[in-house]
Amino acid sequence: MSSASYTAGELAQRFGLRLHGEAATHVDGVGTLARAGASQLAFLANPKYRNQLADSHAAVVVMREDDAQDYARTALIARDPYATFAKISALFEPRPVRDPGVHASAAIDANAHVDPSAHIGAFVSIGARSRVEAGAVIGPGCVIGEDCVVGAGSELIARVTLVTRVRLGQRVVIHPGAVLGAAGFGLAMEGGRWLNVPQLGGVSVGDDCEIGANTCIDRGAIEDTVLEEDVRLDNQIQIGHNVHIGAHTAMAGCSAAAGSARIGRYCLIGGGAGVLGHLEICDKVVVTAMSLVTSSIREPGEYSSGTPLMDNRSWRKNAARFKQLDALARRVSGRSE
Amino acid sequence: MSSASYTAGELAQRFGLRLHGEAATHVDGVGTLARAGASQLAFLANPKYRNQLADSHAAVVVMREDDAQDYARTALIARDPYATFAKISALFEPRPVRDPGVHASAAIDANAHVDPSAHIGAFVSIGARSRVEAGAVIGPGCVIGEDCVVGAGSELIARVTLVTRVRLGQRVVIHPGAVLGAAGFGLAMEGGRWLNVPQLGGVSVGDDCEIGANTCIDRGAIEDTVLEEDVRLDNQIQIGHNVHIGAHTAMAGCSAAAGSARIGRYCLIGGGAGVLGHLEICDKVVVTAMSLVTSSIREPGEYSSGTPLMDNRSWRKNAARFKQLDALARRVSGRSE
Amino acid sequence: MSSASYTAGELAQRFGLRLHGEAATHVDGVGTLARAGASQLAFLANPKYRNQLADSHAAVVVMREDDAQDYARTALIARDPYATFAKISALFEPRPVRDPGVHASAAIDANAHVDPSAHIGAFVSIGARSRVEAGAVIGPGCVIGEDCVVGAGSELIARVTLVTRVRLGQRVVIHPGAVLGAAGFGLAMEGGRWLNVPQLGGVSVGDDCEIGANTCIDRGAIEDTVLEEDVRLDNQIQIGHNVHIGAHTAMAGCSAAAGSARIGRYCLIGGGAGVLGHLEICDKVVVTAMSLVTSSIREPGEYSSGTPLMDNRSWRKNAARFKQLDALARRVSGRSE
Repeated sequence: MSSASYTAGELAQRFGLRLHGEAATHVDGVGTLARAGASQLAFLANPKYRNQLADSHAAVVVMREDDAQDYARTALIARDPYATFAKISALFEPRPVRDPGVHASAAIDANAHVDPSAHIGAFVSIGARSRVEAGAVIGPGCVIGEDCVVGAGSELIARVTLVTRVRLGQRVVIHPGAVLGAAGFGLAMEGGRWLNVPQLGGVSVGDDCEIGANTCIDRGAIEDTVLEEDVRLDNQIQIGHNVHIGAHTAMAGCSAAAGSARIGRYCLIGGGAGVLGHLEICDKVVVTAMSLVTSSIREPGEYSSGTPLMDNRSWRKNAARFKQLDALARRVSGRSE
Repeated sequence: MSSASYTAGELAQRFGLRLHGEAATHVDGVGTLARAGASQLAFLANPKYRNQLADSHAAVVVMREDDAQDYARTALIARDPYATFAKISALFEPRPVRDPGVHASAAIDANAHVDPSAHIGAFVSIGARSRVEAGAVIGPGCVIGEDCVVGAGSELIARVTLVTRVRLGQRVVIHPGAVLGAAGFGLAMEGGRWLNVPQLGGVSVGDDCEIGANTCIDRGAIEDTVLEEDVRLDNQIQIGHNVHIGAHTAMAGCSAAAGSARIGRYCLIGGGAGVLGHLEICDKVVVTAMSLVTSSIREPGEYSSGTPLMDNRSWRKNAARFKQLDALARRVSGRSE
Repeated sequence: MSSASYTAGELAQRFGLRLHGEAATHVDGVGTLARAGASQLAFLANPKYRNQLADSHAAVVVMREDDAQDYARTALIARDPYATFAKISALFEPRPVRDPGVHASAAIDANAHVDPSAHIGAFVSIGARSRVEAGAVIGPGCVIGEDCVVGAGSELIARVTLVTRVRLGQRVVIHPGAVLGAAGFGLAMEGGRWLNVPQLGGVSVGDDCEIGANTCIDRGAIEDTVLEEDVRLDNQIQIGHNVHIGAHTAMAGCSAAAGSARIGRYCLIGGGAGVLGHLEICDKVVVTAMSLVTSSIREPGEYSSGTPLMDNRSWRKNAARFKQLDALARRVSGRSE
């Protein structure tokens, strides 16, 4: 996929790593420890995979000091082999060319501003008073509505929608199908019918955030929905209006935060987990997959809900008892008094 | 965001509210009680926020009679401050201009009909025998397939897909990325391979419904999938084929109803909740977030499943015991007999 | 919807079925047993609906031998009435015309290859080195990036995105809004900031797979994400990088498999169910709706987690006791020793 080629020595120097073995060993790509070819670089981070090392054909393996003790072939020694691997493998990542300029088919409002160094792809629509800044890339089929900003170096891969009043910082990446700035779900019941509550706010996304495919971030009702810098959202996530997500927090696929929830910095929200509206989660909280956060969390740590997986027959028996758990507890308690 | 400006007196008259304080007070926007500026209108509905009233800079606050007793500044008295606020704030909502007419880039089948008062945006595709009625707005990037109807005054914000046989009533709003009328998930196993069951029905959506971003509503297998009037679906929802949803029901983000489920009128389905196929839920049922409805519900009321959130260490201990809950119950029961 | 018309005798011959009753009976469409009109064909598969047979107006009913014993009208006898119905109803399915050729608006890279018998719709974008093979249909608004293959006879209904390195087999169907080949969620923390791990792999989809609306399948980190042949994914599903799904497995709406999970052949994953990363599920496993698979499954069978639905008041009491379940079990256990 790439014609790049480096020697182990060149990589050691470039990334400030200690070289173990042959400096001249050539690397022209990356692979997994189990399946890397004879000119590929692999990594060993998880001790669980240490037994794959002997049989690996990898030309060079990135590993920790102590894993290299008895290793007879070429290695690069790193404190964090996974992060180091990430940086090295970027050398081999094919990057599609996105030249500056506007595709002939694009429909750009006369009152929008596109920096000459930005790339605007086919079938892109940009509304009034929106700005696309230097070096930004707007891939094919994206729709940018009114009053949006795409910060310098940001990239909307393809078919992304920024509805209105969405302001992206610098180097933000948004994957296909994501929708930012749709009207939040604000309803009041009046006379037996729903009345829409106008959603007058916007969405503010900090520098270096990444938003996954088909993820939704609604605009705020009055003030903005906010992602601080370096927030990472996976695919299929739902972020309600006026949610606030702290810097460096990552949310896994299919998770959701309901309106006005406030999630701290450096949190990890597991796949399919949910956070109810108006709650607060402090910094450095881990919520495990498919857990539901039903009240505010004020202490860092790991939190869970749910029950373990069982064969269906056992589950049916145990689950039926859950319906009488209070009665059971009273019974036990009663007899002990 | 808007140059509209009203006096408190004008607003009182327009919305039939009692004025408390200065009729001449100017309002040029809305804000939250905590952060409204000196020319903005805020509201007080939840008693929990009453303590913010003293420090609020809001020019005018919409509140209930009794909250205004000791209030020395300007207020508008409403029975339902939230619904009243919704109506007032609509005066300040910026509405993008969508002039009647068809964008030059649109690809419209010769056998489709578009009312001259409708707006068709850039890169819109409309298939054979589909109709877009008076005043409807089809935003950029929408795809409308064959045999669809978009009723008068309805709006597809952007990048919405109506696959085939989707009939929308009047004043329906659909947010970006929603897909209506895709083939339902109908499969039969034959000779060790899946066989597709043709999905011959359509989707029928009543007047005043609203469909959230990236929500899916599959078309029916034989008859239609149906939303009655004023149904409100949030983002990321999945509605299977032949589901029927009663009028005025609201479903929160990431919830789902499997094939042929029947949900009554005035129900509230919480975020991430699921309804299994072929079940019936009667009118006025509330299902709390991330609950799973596994059998029909015949009595109005609130229903839940799941377990509470705990710190992970406690959760592990308790969850492990859940696997032996039946044995535990038998033991307690055995000893008491 | 269709002008096709057949006699019961023609259908019996065409599908190798035994005819019960009048060969000359005309059929011009299909319906449900309860609501079929006098010239429609219906089916009876589930004994639960047997009581609808007497009142049905259907011209012809597909049923099992024993259900036809006392049936006085026209029937077609099948071992699997549902599968047979599926095949017959395909005769009445309206199929939009998709002539070979490329829509004038399509933006196709000079280094892409489109077979002359393929159909490319309006506003389609195809990137460098991608191939669309014989008879494939690319509906309006699809985006195909670099280095993709759409196999012969495959169909992307509309607004599908293949980001990069996505290879589809033959007769694959993908519904609107699906995103295949987006970068997987690969992150390493370094110095308090997230570092992206390049996602160098692709997505490989076998023959006869079907991918639902708004479903996401991420591309692999190093090797490919793989769906073997005849895999069926419903809507709103999330498939993480390097997941491997065995042939003939079906996953229902809103389910998810996290990175590097391996799901066997002939599995059924229920709606909203989740599979944690790096786990293995063997062949012929059924996971019920909204269950979470937290460890590998090595025996075929049905698996579940969660608790039953209850009225909210009972649920609150029981759920509160769940928090003390370990203490309760210790108490019972202690007293018995």
